Amino acid sequence: MPRFFLSGGSSIAGGTAFVLGEDANHVKVLRLRIGDRLVICDGSKDHHCKITKIAPNEVEADVVESVPCTGEPDVAVSIVCGLPKSDKADTIVQKCTESGASEIAFFESHRCVARATESLEKKLARWQKIAEEAAKQSGRGLIPSVRFLGNLADAFNRAKETELPLFMYETGNRQPLKDVIEAKGKFASAAVITGPEGGFEEYEAQLAEVMHIPLCSMGPRIYRCETAPVAALSAIMYATGNM
Amino acid sequence: MPRFFLSGGSSIAGGTAFVLGEDANHVKVLRLRIGDRLVICDGSKDHHCKITKIAPNEVEADVVESVPCTGEPDVAVSIVCGLPKSDKADTIVQKCTESGASEIAFFESHRCVARATESLEKKLARWQKIAEEAAKQSGRGLIPSVRFLGNLADAFNRAKETELPLFMYETGNRQPLKDVIEAKGKFASAAVITGPEGGFEEYEAQLAEVMHIPLCSMGPRIYRCETAPVAALSAIMYATGNM
Repeated sequence: MPRFFLSGGSSIAGGTAFVLGEDANHVKVLRLRIGDRLVICDGSKDHHCKITKIAPNEVEADVVESVPCTGEPDVAVSIVCGLPKSDKADTIVQKCTESGASEIAFFESHRCVARATESLEKKLARWQKIAEEAAKQSGRGLIPSVRFLGNLADAFNRAKETELPLFMYETGNRQPLKDVIEAKGKFASAAVITGPEGGFEEYEAQLAEVMHIPLCSMGPRIYRCETAPVAALSAIMYATGNM
Repeated sequence: MPRFFLSGGSSIAGGTAFVLGEDANHVKVLRLRIGDRLVICDGSKDHHCKITKIAPNEVEADVVESVPCTGEPDVAVSIVCGLPKSDKADTIVQKCTESGASEIAFFESHRCVARATESLEKKLARWQKIAEEAAKQSGRGLIPSVRFLGNLADAFNRAKETELPLFMYETGNRQPLKDVIEAKGKFASAAVITGPEGGFEEYEAQLAEVMHIPLCSMGPRIYRCETAPVAALSAIMYATGNM
């Protein structure tokens, strides 16, 4: 069923839902008519609604039923990525949203080819839009926030705010991801740190170690920078019973 | 290190490696010179070589060391996908190769928009090339074979040749993927069956059940057709200690 988020400019008051702005246009693009159903998610509940009025820039609908939204995993995973080139960043945002990430944050690491420039604000707005579309399509209960964190230290500090920060590293002395996750037992939040196109410099891995962020191996295969976050996230979703 | 497969037109005889055809051109594209190193993989061993001669269409190298290749997981996972549109199929082949699939097979299911046409042979050749490139880049020990299987019954029969065929389904009565995998215990081969853009018809899921292929849930999220195989494959790699 077509799915919208309250944050998308829609609101609910007294049993009536008001779908506004771009979302209202989207209702028309989908060729929905009076009597058709849609879902409006407020982050904790899915409100199943029936369309009663379609006007320019506004669609009204009766709330038929409100049920707890079930699209969210019970673990909040932050994806913390060395900023890759734009199309790869788009892929990461879309696929990690589908795969259950709660946040996607980019940062500048040593080997980043892409640089955070004056157009960063525009990019963030585009990525947030991609996250919203992917959240709608995949039935998520929330739209992951897309952020830019700054440098490596900022990224590691963000990751350390979660219960299980994980640094994915392709070489050297690492522990299998599975061992690290299983040793942790239960956790409600985690962070997956992955590199840009060229991976990480050794000093970057050393900084992670100094900050007590475990260096993890995803096996002998070398993943592309846009594939690693999805693979690691899927492993965590599996490990925590969310898949 | 640059990586080539024997199947790519190269050969090894008497301690000398002969890199031929496209791979020889690739050596030049990479601007490798005499004295530079490359790896030639024969499916079970990685032969580390040092370039001794660069001629048009042929590069010769001395085999310095041959070591067992470590890039292969100890579980052979077949990805069996309802044929999606071409760019999505490309993505599936590339990402599943990186993520450790041993085979990627497409089939025609009810809701396929893409159809197997006279150009299928060309497409298969392109997909096989994508698999080869991804295998080189990700350090795999083999190039996954890319196949077209025909219809649903053919696909299910192929999946049933593995120890653990799995049908990913978005609705109805399903078991969590984790429960099915853990109930199986150890296995050396598996198949992940996923749908095309529009998912599966109910009768298709019923046929899977009749054929004793378990219907599996990947959680409440709806994955895009090109994301589901990678997510399920990563879960299996994690579950079997290959990540």
